[in-house]
Amino acid sequence: MAMIEQPEAPAAPAISFDDVLTAAERLRGVANRTPVLTSHTLNDLTGAEVFLKAETFQRIGAFKFRGAYNAISALDPDVRARGVVTNSSGNHAQAVALSARLFGIPATIVMPTDAPPAKIAATRGYGAEIVFYDRYTEDRAAIADRVAQERGATMIPPYDHPLVMAGNGTSALELIDEVGDLDLLLVCLGGGGLLAGSATAAKGRNPDIEIWGVEPAAGDDWAQSFAKGERVRLPQVPRTIADGQQTEAPGKLTWPTVRPLVAGIATVTDDEIRDAMRFLFERMKLVVEPSGASALAALMSGKVDGRGKRVGVTLSGGNIGVDGFCQIINQRDA
Amino acid sequence: MAMIEQPEAPAAPAISFDDVLTAAERLRGVANRTPVLTSHTLNDLTGAEVFLKAETFQRIGAFKFRGAYNAISALDPDVRARGVVTNSSGNHAQAVALSARLFGIPATIVMPTDAPPAKIAATRGYGAEIVFYDRYTEDRAAIADRVAQERGATMIPPYDHPLVMAGNGTSALELIDEVGDLDLLLVCLGGGGLLAGSATAAKGRNPDIEIWGVEPAAGDDWAQSFAKGERVRLPQVPRTIADGQQTEAPGKLTWPTVRPLVAGIATVTDDEIRDAMRFLFERMKLVVEPSGASALAALMSGKVDGRGKRVGVTLSGGNIGVDGFCQIINQRDA
Repeated sequence: MAMIEQPEAPAAPAISFDDVLTAAERLRGVANRTPVLTSHTLNDLTGAEVFLKAETFQRIGAFKFRGAYNAISALDPDVRARGVVTNSSGNHAQAVALSARLFGIPATIVMPTDAPPAKIAATRGYGAEIVFYDRYTEDRAAIADRVAQERGATMIPPYDHPLVMAGNGTSALELIDEVGDLDLLLVCLGGGGLLAGSATAAKGRNPDIEIWGVEPAAGDDWAQSFAKGERVRLPQVPRTIADGQQTEAPGKLTWPTVRPLVAGIATVTDDEIRDAMRFLFERMKLVVEPSGASALAALMSGKVDGRGKRVGVTLSGGNIGVDGFCQIINQRDA
Repeated sequence: MAMIEQPEAPAAPAISFDDVLTAAERLRGVANRTPVLTSHTLNDLTGAEVFLKAETFQRIGAFKFRGAYNAISALDPDVRARGVVTNSSGNHAQAVALSARLFGIPATIVMPTDAPPAKIAATRGYGAEIVFYDRYTEDRAAIADRVAQERGATMIPPYDHPLVMAGNGTSALELIDEVGDLDLLLVCLGGGGLLAGSATAAKGRNPDIEIWGVEPAAGDDWAQSFAKGERVRLPQVPRTIADGQQTEAPGKLTWPTVRPLVAGIATVTDDEIRDAMRFLFERMKLVVEPSGASALAALMSGKVDGRGKRVGVTLSGGNIGVDGFCQIINQRDA
């Protein structure tokens, strides 16, 4: 089934707690300090005292702005002036586009020709140029490399980059600095950029905190990797409603950063994610995209036991349209 | 079409600014201080600087908690101990039920037998007793009166009560105290309890502020009343998706309180409300019920011109289920 990656990954974590603190300085007054939300009903349901960090209210609607802005902010001004490029078409594309606009520099986003019109429009709305590729005949990484070389633009990867991880970690830092020590922290997990930063931040503030990553059961590359003790690559793109968590393997840099800090990886079904999305909508009046609700799904389903504990949960993003939301919310797993 | 009410209404406003300040003291540490949310996209769309007061995050999911708690809080303890009763089946029912539970007193809610199961469950969840009536053969006011007499319970009306109005006004007070002076304030309008309190609070802080009430075009009892200079009663319950704004006439006490403070009444179509709900969902990640989105609909549709102004808008509540939301969002007016 799954191939084992060659051990090209460095053994050491790619970032330190100081990197997160530095990112927090860079993001001050630029990123939103997102609200922490609580619910008596949620506490009753889970037996825990739960603090939800709502990155849905971050600029561009997801935590990704933190990492992208931090990475671009750290570039040498002469290098930065030549622009940035990325080959992600999701929330990271909007994060790079907005960050570039704030610095007044060009951004190029490499997207498949069949990307959702709403995502294309949102990315263009932030002023980025889009270069399309045919996902069946062309290699997006090669196209991004060519753009980078031709224009002298800097590649901003979606997660496997120290400055991206460190920037993303400022979310957990804010959470803990606002509510105080937590016993447990649950973080959604795709490529691992949010978890790497969050775990570094949380352990930096409190070495005793227990941290879990949460991924969809259909895309359990991290859980398999933890079980084997090395990076495992799934044979194909996982099928799940959590489109932000369809990565096939842990990142080369996120893996050695996450592994020593995290107690384990929990997996949730799409139905468990739907239940969490419905709860967030109906009881907390929050729109959360499937990937963004997965960490709460692990707590609500009991996959991670929070009883008697102070638990932080990241709601990582809310970028889903009304029509997509209504379409998936009432489907059920086969 | 519309009948003119007998002039039984007192000429003077039913509350003063001091009543709102007193309510704010009673609600401190009990009601949520709800967040004020902003959006660059919304500012670009409207040409205004917009501040959204998100009462969706108030306890029970709507501003109604403020008024109900304030009214119950002000009762003599001996009187309060005998309990409270109301005949509303909407957000006010949950507001009374939760407030009663916080005081450890019994609450009785008179509801029609065909009330939505979700509302019945939510109200029971707060510990209230429900007395059902047949809406085709029985008079709910008479039933509530009987309960009040038999049990010695105090009636807490949904809007036409000075303490309810004053409590509701704390929302606008918080908004202005957080963001500073506003040029314009838009408030959703059903019975007028929120607008009466909000206008009193806003004019108390800034006599020059311009205030508009917003109601559904299908239920324009306030607009007609303003045009005639006296309370007008609609011949039937208005048909609109804004189920919190289906009142047939201004309240006896809200009318003389609102009238001298408000510049005018704007009306919005159900489609304009849907557009605002969709914007709030997709761009701001907020679940807002139709009644709660009507004030923003007036601004977004240009019914009230906010260009160049600092504009406060109340999002009054978010109590709508996923299924109901998905059902109404894609309908269009005939």
